[in-house]
Amino acid sequence: MTASAGPPRRTGRGDLELRRVSFECGAAPYAEGSCLVSFGDTRVLCTASVEEGVPAWREDASAGWVTAEYGMLPRATHSRRARERGGAGGRTREIERLIGRSLRAVTNLRVLGARTVVVDCDVIQADGGTRTASITGGCVALGLALRDLERKGLVEQSPRLDLVAAVSVGLLASRPILDLDYGEDRRAQVDMNVVATGRGTLVEVQGTAEGEPFGRAELDRMLDIALDAIADLTARQRDLMLRE
Amino acid sequence: MTASAGPPRRTGRGDLELRRVSFECGAAPYAEGSCLVSFGDTRVLCTASVEEGVPAWREDASAGWVTAEYGMLPRATHSRRARERGGAGGRTREIERLIGRSLRAVTNLRVLGARTVVVDCDVIQADGGTRTASITGGCVALGLALRDLERKGLVEQSPRLDLVAAVSVGLLASRPILDLDYGEDRRAQVDMNVVATGRGTLVEVQGTAEGEPFGRAELDRMLDIALDAIADLTARQRDLMLRE
Amino acid sequence: MTASAGPPRRTGRGDLELRRVSFECGAAPYAEGSCLVSFGDTRVLCTASVEEGVPAWREDASAGWVTAEYGMLPRATHSRRARERGGAGGRTREIERLIGRSLRAVTNLRVLGARTVVVDCDVIQADGGTRTASITGGCVALGLALRDLERKGLVEQSPRLDLVAAVSVGLLASRPILDLDYGEDRRAQVDMNVVATGRGTLVEVQGTAEGEPFGRAELDRMLDIALDAIADLTARQRDLMLRE
Amino acid sequence: MTASAGPPRRTGRGDLELRRVSFECGAAPYAEGSCLVSFGDTRVLCTASVEEGVPAWREDASAGWVTAEYGMLPRATHSRRARERGGAGGRTREIERLIGRSLRAVTNLRVLGARTVVVDCDVIQADGGTRTASITGGCVALGLALRDLERKGLVEQSPRLDLVAAVSVGLLASRPILDLDYGEDRRAQVDMNVVATGRGTLVEVQGTAEGEPFGRAELDRMLDIALDAIADLTARQRDLMLRE
Amino acid sequence: MTASAGPPRRTGRGDLELRRVSFECGAAPYAEGSCLVSFGDTRVLCTASVEEGVPAWREDASAGWVTAEYGMLPRATHSRRARERGGAGGRTREIERLIGRSLRAVTNLRVLGARTVVVDCDVIQADGGTRTASITGGCVALGLALRDLERKGLVEQSPRLDLVAAVSVGLLASRPILDLDYGEDRRAQVDMNVVATGRGTLVEVQGTAEGEPFGRAELDRMLDIALDAIADLTARQRDLMLRE
Amino acid sequence: MTASAGPPRRTGRGDLELRRVSFECGAAPYAEGSCLVSFGDTRVLCTASVEEGVPAWREDASAGWVTAEYGMLPRATHSRRARERGGAGGRTREIERLIGRSLRAVTNLRVLGARTVVVDCDVIQADGGTRTASITGGCVALGLALRDLERKGLVEQSPRLDLVAAVSVGLLASRPILDLDYGEDRRAQVDMNVVATGRGTLVEVQGTAEGEPFGRAELDRMLDIALDAIADLTARQRDLMLRE
Repeated sequence: MTASAGPPRRTGRGDLELRRVSFECGAAPYAEGSCLVSFGDTRVLCTASVEEGVPAWREDASAGWVTAEYGMLPRATHSRRARERGGAGGRTREIERLIGRSLRAVTNLRVLGARTVVVDCDVIQADGGTRTASITGGCVALGLALRDLERKGLVEQSPRLDLVAAVSVGLLASRPILDLDYGEDRRAQVDMNVVATGRGTLVEVQGTAEGEPFGRAELDRMLDIALDAIADLTARQRDLMLRE
Repeated sequence: MTASAGPPRRTGRGDLELRRVSFECGAAPYAEGSCLVSFGDTRVLCTASVEEGVPAWREDASAGWVTAEYGMLPRATHSRRARERGGAGGRTREIERLIGRSLRAVTNLRVLGARTVVVDCDVIQADGGTRTASITGGCVALGLALRDLERKGLVEQSPRLDLVAAVSVGLLASRPILDLDYGEDRRAQVDMNVVATGRGTLVEVQGTAEGEPFGRAELDRMLDIALDAIADLTARQRDLMLRE
Repeated sequence: MTASAGPPRRTGRGDLELRRVSFECGAAPYAEGSCLVSFGDTRVLCTASVEEGVPAWREDASAGWVTAEYGMLPRATHSRRARERGGAGGRTREIERLIGRSLRAVTNLRVLGARTVVVDCDVIQADGGTRTASITGGCVALGLALRDLERKGLVEQSPRLDLVAAVSVGLLASRPILDLDYGEDRRAQVDMNVVATGRGTLVEVQGTAEGEPFGRAELDRMLDIALDAIADLTARQRDLMLRE
Repeated sequence: MTASAGPPRRTGRGDLELRRVSFECGAAPYAEGSCLVSFGDTRVLCTASVEEGVPAWREDASAGWVTAEYGMLPRATHSRRARERGGAGGRTREIERLIGRSLRAVTNLRVLGARTVVVDCDVIQADGGTRTASITGGCVALGLALRDLERKGLVEQSPRLDLVAAVSVGLLASRPILDLDYGEDRRAQVDMNVVATGRGTLVEVQGTAEGEPFGRAELDRMLDIALDAIADLTARQRDLMLRE
Repeated sequence: MTASAGPPRRTGRGDLELRRVSFECGAAPYAEGSCLVSFGDTRVLCTASVEEGVPAWREDASAGWVTAEYGMLPRATHSRRARERGGAGGRTREIERLIGRSLRAVTNLRVLGARTVVVDCDVIQADGGTRTASITGGCVALGLALRDLERKGLVEQSPRLDLVAAVSVGLLASRPILDLDYGEDRRAQVDMNVVATGRGTLVEVQGTAEGEPFGRAELDRMLDIALDAIADLTARQRDLMLRE
Repeated sequence: MTASAGPPRRTGRGDLELRRVSFECGAAPYAEGSCLVSFGDTRVLCTASVEEGVPAWREDASAGWVTAEYGMLPRATHSRRARERGGAGGRTREIERLIGRSLRAVTNLRVLGARTVVVDCDVIQADGGTRTASITGGCVALGLALRDLERKGLVEQSPRLDLVAAVSVGLLASRPILDLDYGEDRRAQVDMNVVATGRGTLVEVQGTAEGEPFGRAELDRMLDIALDAIADLTARQRDLMLRE
């Protein structure tokens, strides 16, 4: 991911280069698992909370559930955004569903047992890619909370099946670029989020033309780039989980 | 789309065969454009309403806007669903945003002028694929409303840039199948919605693993199948617009 | 109901003539009972859903309950109306209570047992008289659902006590007219809805002066007209229930 | 209204006798008009507030508007009722619309000018008939506020066209009775509210069978009784307005 | 409390003089305890409702709970205020919490047993000091309801530990004044509410600078004044409870 | 504040000793002013956002406004708390009003001009005293934003009149203690928050008995302690503002 095929972006970053990524585990000491993840200037505090019981609508009451909530501090953004006190908006709910699905894809809910893990992803600073950072950091927070259950002997084996990470990739001036920051995201013609596992299998693909539709060849190229970057990110998560 | 590579599905349909598709134009006589679209037992009433002015948040007040709302009659489904009187849920908002983006991708908002077209997609009967049917039928309702503007001399040229249609494709028992009905959708491992134009360019790709993640080769195969079906659907839309 | 005492209305209809009335049974195949009722251009899809149990506030838990919900598609009307996502408005709730009371008046709730029947009345097209059409069509949907219970042996006898229908009658240019369409309704000085049974007994009388109050003699004349029309409508319902 | 045809009710009142009715004008000193009305143990504080301007939806901006709000103190009833903080319920809205229509029927909105009068009816104690007491007392509060406008020279003539009052009448044990208290209301087969003017013309008739439907002859008899009582009430209002 | 150190206020009242205070017990006949309290033109109807059971969040299910709700009739104030139908505002909730805490401070919740007393304080007329009047009158309503429990033999001893009353004191033109009315409250630099018991101990002290901060000496002087007045008020409550 | 009269608290801190206090200026780079304040394990991110214009209800449109919002990340606490998506609760609104009043007390709104400063206080970790930390840190964030206005030449002089800080003080086992952490706060008999300026004048005093009422002598002692600590805190704020 270090070499870029083309000329640098405004920020000097290569087209196919990730921003500086870091994970600060234990950033929220009261949570069963937590991680402050940074992708450049985007910072998200991810916490995993373990609660006994499952939602009433779950038919299979013996298996657990993993769900996510997403929020943004009012001044995470360049201009102040109102709090979502009148109910979460459509974009927020869409992101929450995406994070939840992604994390469930790498969790063995049956091994988890009749417990719910709520992963809260609160954006402290937003410079593009908050949903992909939430998935990538949320996976670490969840992993730490699941390990905590294991260490306490509350589950017989690890409910964690794999790691999961996400990146954005887009088309800007007809060139594919990786991990868009806010300024790039606003100008991109196509914005695509890819979620994949440590094994390289896909959990979610969401590609959207913001204006002009795009061709199949461009889609294929963007997928290649995203999967390479996700392999890099899951390798870092694996190292982190071994160290912690 | 008539031949299927594999053995028939429960309903006798080929794996790569669309359900019976029909369009009833003018189904809501008071609307500027309307279309009752059916994909098998899925029926959606799409209406396009033209209103003067654009939303206050639109910075460029000289260009128009196209937005969508999605609803479901309480007994469109096998068991009764509550009305969304406490606010539209996350799934509803996500579908509305998808429909809106898809329709804007084939509309010249500048030619439309300072007008808003609201496309309402109300599901009369739901047997899977309601969002893809909404896009496919909504395109026809929108097209008729835009033509109405043109015929009345309110726009100088047609604001319609292209046609747009959508289908679902999934993996069921590891086989790719097209246009899933409700029963198939519930059992599918992967559910993917593809939105593309008459020219074959992509507007939106949304693929989701419901349990097990899926491989890149499977993704590529599903995209091929979806694009073939969309070429078929936009050809039908084109014929329809010529006849009306 | 065929002869009219006075000169024709704008539409050529006699003052005391009903619009063309039709019932399409089974229009919502997933519902236990359903009926698409038309009074001229007013079309309402009525579905009856049977659910086990009764609302918590019902003190007598051994007897059942019949309730109604009323909605309108956004483009059922000449100009688009917003969906009631912030909660049902006062007019909607008032109509729902009226429909519910009317249907309960002809249902033996004790024979129904600890079940709730929800009758949804969704207006597809609105040209006046949507609440009276909802009662008249809702009675058919309810009747079909109750018969379904009887045929399945879930109730010992029919919980249906009688049929119920409703019409509007008004004063326009000081003349009484029957079954007002939207244009007539806007211009009427008095708007009255009458709900009565197949036996000719009254369930509900609601007469409202929109501007000038009206005299007792006019009230008496409007009641005569409404009861004649309801006798006609319940006769049609009876034929329909025998045929289905 | 003093003689009753039949044997006394539980409370010793004649079948066709009103409860003790009283009006206390000026009970809310800050309001432009106010009246604490009592019908036996039912007590309602009615205030009329004059505000400049009319609601935005009023097309004719030169004519005024009269609207009503209705509330109940939590312990106006035998057991405590929750405040309507999550929005007014269906019954509340229905009552508010009825009060508003009744008061507008006796107001010349054009003479009122571009003003809104809000009549608040707050039930201090509820023993049946709160909506009819609200109309009867609200008419006095409104009348005082309109006179205040006249005395201040803000309107050229009185915007008050007439007086309006309301009573309930019902069928209990197959006998018509007037002005039902809470206990009678619960046991009545038919509950009817009649709103009429000082001239004896009708503004609103709402008759509802709570269980068994009722015959036309019974309806006619109940209307006679109600109109007699309203003549009595409007005579008292007239005396009051002359005295104040 | 009768003598005032300085020149009279606009109303002729001495700086350290209470307004005319009165208590009308039993003003809401259906409630277990009630009291209409007046401080000059401020009038609040306080009712205490006893309900079996305690809120679900109370961990100790064997001890009872006392809670308060506060409301204001729309025309209690000089200009009409909207009803709080979209949820109680911040000021309302703050007042409710204050009243509830004050009343719980003089109640033995364990003796009360698994019951909830809801004290509703509804302002009929507002001329300043509605929250202190609510506490002072609410104490009487609560006391009567608790005595009712005792007389019925539902509690073994009186759950009432003491009496509680409240007054406001402020700085106006740099002079301390007692029991501010609305006009004084608007002009005061400091507004302080003090809640204390019959024994002279403090339950709550809330002092707020509306503009200029205030000194410690002024705070001390205002506390002296408030505690004197509360001694007077609790003496009146004691007499009242003995008489009733 | 270093010496404590009595034996140490559980944490080894002296009764009259503050927790470790720190301020990290510029913690939210996009905001006009920001400060991450810590009182021991309590951490609050305070941001000040400057917006042109004032709220519509402000009568004096030439003077500015300072308001505050308060939030808590779901896992700031030992067990997860739900987000306030259904509207801010009573406690939240009460805290917001307190912070807003405190900050306005040291701001010259006329010099600020027709601008609104929104100070957001978001609790990252909660170990007691979040409202007092919010005021103390919010003052720094506000001060930085006001200085930014001054440096840009948007105001003629500094709108900052003084500094403001807050601490809690309580009675625990009948001893006064300063700056309670969460565990102490839960066990305290009296909880008092004091807000005062750099000059030592009072902005707000809020003392609450959680169970047993308290005496006047105890109140006086707690006020002494709080004012000493606030003198210490405003001295630190002054140093900080000079350095930044």
